[in-house]
Amino acid sequence: MSVIEHIQSKLGDLDAWLIPHEDAFLGEYLPAANERLAFVTGFTGSAGIALVTKERLHIWVDGRYTVQVQSQVPAGTQVHHLHETPIGDFFAELPQGSRVGFDSFCVSARQLRLWREGAPGVAFVHGHNLVDACWPERPALPSAKGFALSDKLTGKSCQQKRQELAKTIAKKADVALIAQPDSLAWLTNLRGADIPCMPVMLMRGLLSASGHLKLFVDIARLPADAELGSDVEVFAPEMLGAELAALKGQKVLVDEGLTSAFLVEELNMAGATVVLGTDPALIPKAAKNAVEIDAMRETHLRDGAAVSQFLCWLDGIVAKGERPDEAALAEQLESYRKAQADYLEPSFDTISAAGANAALPHYNFRNGTPAKLPKDGLYLVDSGGQYRLGTTDVTRTVAIGEVSAEQKHLYTLVLKGHIGLGRARFVKGTCGHQLDYLARAPLWAEGYDYDHGTGHGVGQCLSVHEGPQRIGKAANNYPILPGMVFSNEPGFYRVGAFGIRIENLVTVEKAEAPGDREVMCFENLTYIPIDKRLVDKSLLSDTELGWFNDYHAKVLAKIGPRLEGESRQWLEAACAPL
Amino acid sequence: MSVIEHIQSKLGDLDAWLIPHEDAFLGEYLPAANERLAFVTGFTGSAGIALVTKERLHIWVDGRYTVQVQSQVPAGTQVHHLHETPIGDFFAELPQGSRVGFDSFCVSARQLRLWREGAPGVAFVHGHNLVDACWPERPALPSAKGFALSDKLTGKSCQQKRQELAKTIAKKADVALIAQPDSLAWLTNLRGADIPCMPVMLMRGLLSASGHLKLFVDIARLPADAELGSDVEVFAPEMLGAELAALKGQKVLVDEGLTSAFLVEELNMAGATVVLGTDPALIPKAAKNAVEIDAMRETHLRDGAAVSQFLCWLDGIVAKGERPDEAALAEQLESYRKAQADYLEPSFDTISAAGANAALPHYNFRNGTPAKLPKDGLYLVDSGGQYRLGTTDVTRTVAIGEVSAEQKHLYTLVLKGHIGLGRARFVKGTCGHQLDYLARAPLWAEGYDYDHGTGHGVGQCLSVHEGPQRIGKAANNYPILPGMVFSNEPGFYRVGAFGIRIENLVTVEKAEAPGDREVMCFENLTYIPIDKRLVDKSLLSDTELGWFNDYHAKVLAKIGPRLEGESRQWLEAACAPL
Repeated sequence: MSVIEHIQSKLGDLDAWLIPHEDAFLGEYLPAANERLAFVTGFTGSAGIALVTKERLHIWVDGRYTVQVQSQVPAGTQVHHLHETPIGDFFAELPQGSRVGFDSFCVSARQLRLWREGAPGVAFVHGHNLVDACWPERPALPSAKGFALSDKLTGKSCQQKRQELAKTIAKKADVALIAQPDSLAWLTNLRGADIPCMPVMLMRGLLSASGHLKLFVDIARLPADAELGSDVEVFAPEMLGAELAALKGQKVLVDEGLTSAFLVEELNMAGATVVLGTDPALIPKAAKNAVEIDAMRETHLRDGAAVSQFLCWLDGIVAKGERPDEAALAEQLESYRKAQADYLEPSFDTISAAGANAALPHYNFRNGTPAKLPKDGLYLVDSGGQYRLGTTDVTRTVAIGEVSAEQKHLYTLVLKGHIGLGRARFVKGTCGHQLDYLARAPLWAEGYDYDHGTGHGVGQCLSVHEGPQRIGKAANNYPILPGMVFSNEPGFYRVGAFGIRIENLVTVEKAEAPGDREVMCFENLTYIPIDKRLVDKSLLSDTELGWFNDYHAKVLAKIGPRLEGESRQWLEAACAPL
Repeated sequence: MSVIEHIQSKLGDLDAWLIPHEDAFLGEYLPAANERLAFVTGFTGSAGIALVTKERLHIWVDGRYTVQVQSQVPAGTQVHHLHETPIGDFFAELPQGSRVGFDSFCVSARQLRLWREGAPGVAFVHGHNLVDACWPERPALPSAKGFALSDKLTGKSCQQKRQELAKTIAKKADVALIAQPDSLAWLTNLRGADIPCMPVMLMRGLLSASGHLKLFVDIARLPADAELGSDVEVFAPEMLGAELAALKGQKVLVDEGLTSAFLVEELNMAGATVVLGTDPALIPKAAKNAVEIDAMRETHLRDGAAVSQFLCWLDGIVAKGERPDEAALAEQLESYRKAQADYLEPSFDTISAAGANAALPHYNFRNGTPAKLPKDGLYLVDSGGQYRLGTTDVTRTVAIGEVSAEQKHLYTLVLKGHIGLGRARFVKGTCGHQLDYLARAPLWAEGYDYDHGTGHGVGQCLSVHEGPQRIGKAANNYPILPGMVFSNEPGFYRVGAFGIRIENLVTVEKAEAPGDREVMCFENLTYIPIDKRLVDKSLLSDTELGWFNDYHAKVLAKIGPRLEGESRQWLEAACAPL
């Protein structure tokens, strides 16, 4: 009996069982024990949702995975597009009275509300996870000890952070349910290795308006040097239900999009008043303090040295006529990062994309046979590292052999957009959607564009995709604050031919200005050469050329002392003025 | 007995009576018969809301009116800020069980919903308008005949427009309730003079998914040359209730923000299914066809000739040492517009602001003693005309005597922003919030800003503030379409000193581009000299200087032939290259 038949056999009075990619912590990356979607369907992508009905398996994936999914799921599976024909539409068309079973830990309260609003005739029925019941060989849940970051890296103790958040909570509630592991990691200055690419322990907390913290994690997993301060209690994770039940009559702040529907329903049943709002850790975590930013700067110098060594090596082997494949290149790149102090792991799956593969902005060579570098063309590598002191994310597009005038033209338009956003000056209160134009303007003027956002937030030794701030076409109503970290990553993609992206991380600083408004600007964190062999200098204004040469002078000054011999020579040439 | 005491005497079991500025058509401009807020409170501003409680009069006004309101309302009135301490907060703090009476024709369904959600303990009780019951001398409601625009000005017959809208309606409903007078004016190609500044008749309609229109207006008011086509029925306005009651079981499309709460509650009580969505006329009205845009172009040439004559006259009298007051200047300006063919009326109250008064972006000289032009300084005039063929809106800031280097510096920053936005190129799907940066960037770079939007829509012989598109800091999710008309109006304001604004209207056109995306750009509608005595040429890039000189060459070519003698000579000098 296949696992799908096994689940079908256990449906009972249900018409279907829902299997989101997410686990109870609602994040992108999962421990092996919670890779339920992959276990049931075979599909290994990083986003998707499946529904096992009495008749068949349905799966929803986005545009990145429409090819891959076909080769991974069982014959007879019906594949849907995650955004164009969303599962909510499917629910809306189910017969009146249909019963869809699901584990309401693995769906956010907001998602469940939207599904229910869109399909009032369907009953969404919470139950013990049917997948787990059909998974005898399920891997063990993470149990390793976490590690503590000292105040020298975080700038604030857990006690200080709790007191500051308590003031925010007190304005609207008695206690906040903090359901996101990275919010708690930031709050407690603890990190871990429960999931790939984001160094956190999977835990939850209840922070009161007086700063008292109830932390739900196996106490044996806390490192000896954890400094949580006074007024913190540690509970076993399974005690959360009882503690929620004890909140009767209290106002509990919940971030609806970041919290499991199960937990919100527990609060409602307990007679607590659920107050919807933003996770109180979200903004303080995003707007980093000076100590955190200093740690991020040092992280990027180490990372810059590693990536520069890789780019030097790449130029060398290409010159010798070697054309390794995308997997070998990614491995070589990581070998340089591994040699840096405090390196932990990649901050996401490296996008190592040769030639036409780079036209897929989220290409993953692991999903097929890795391609070899072309004799002539472009190589795009988007990668990042988790270090104990910070997180990096950088994209470089590199000339391999000969490149065409058109490729140089388009690369230079992308570069102009990157510089345009990098040079932005803006007043207090500005949100990401107001700046997105800067990165696109040179492409738009000629009728080109890219179908992804321009800038996402990045955590410190935390998520490489950190909210709530974002620079993109869509509205984002969180004002940009000093200390926030953004990616600056315009691109251009020609299907079947090539892809271009130039990405640095930047942080937000206050700027001097004569006027009466507070002005901010971006300061680069990433210092790694941008391939000047791809630049058509005639397209750059004096200001843009000045930025480009000034940037490379800084790269040489900051990274040069960390390199020796061949790579140091390579860096000097790569940073010579254009 | 004062009118307030009169209303208080009629409260009965109510705790308060609500008096919005809006009438049952929810617009900014009202017929005299519906100036209820002014009648009760004395306050003559264009936005606000009052509440008569058993104890006193409360009034909410925005930042434009905080001074003016104090001199107009009776002693003892409590004044609140419309946005900072909104009436919704006041409702939320009323004792549980409070009963607020109101005429639910004069509040949108959305507004009522938000109040009810924010103050679940308050009963909002619809009743016959208490103000009208206390207003024996109430002016008569408008009854004049409307007039028809020919297809030569509109490009499409009512029949065609109905058929096109019917397709939109059929996707989601059986019939649409069209509650906005300007939507019906556009749909029927009829105009009128029921209210100041917007040439419409106050009417409503029901448009079915087959294109059948029920129009609610006194049939005697329709002009003889109205061409509504087949399948149109005209009902007396008071028949609307009966027609809504007949919609039992039908899906009725309603724009919640543009429709009286009363009408939506009637539909609910009738057993209709209310489908919330956008007024189907909104987008087709905003994205004008080629005939409409041609008419708007011609309107702007006439208006440009009139405003140029005024600016010539102004320079002349200033040179002679005369310093008339703001009222005389506005009157002189309108005298030139009145001399143009097809001129109807101003499209809004002229902002004629001398010296420090211009620091208030919405200054109105009618609210106090009009100031005289300063010996040296700036004069800001923001004005527009309604013509049978289109609507205009233009702001010019003029040097009076000597101006300071700082004024020139700031004026030039505003000009750079105006040029930046005017030169924008953007791809299909772009929304207004994505372009706002362009108009602010030169100011932001030096720490300056302006606290108003950058661009609003403008109708054709309709509202000078037409939705749904808008260029501003806040998100606006309506993509910019060819044929839309926007204002481009960055400014700078120094309280107590001076104000600067430069405003043209532009329309959206498709642009040629080599890439694979559809590109759009703005084309000026307004052709009137921009005062070059205020420009610091050293701050302009070559591109900006080129734009400025090219613009003025076009002004001279387009407006020159419409002027003679002195004003023609003045125009030539004003348009000479910088």
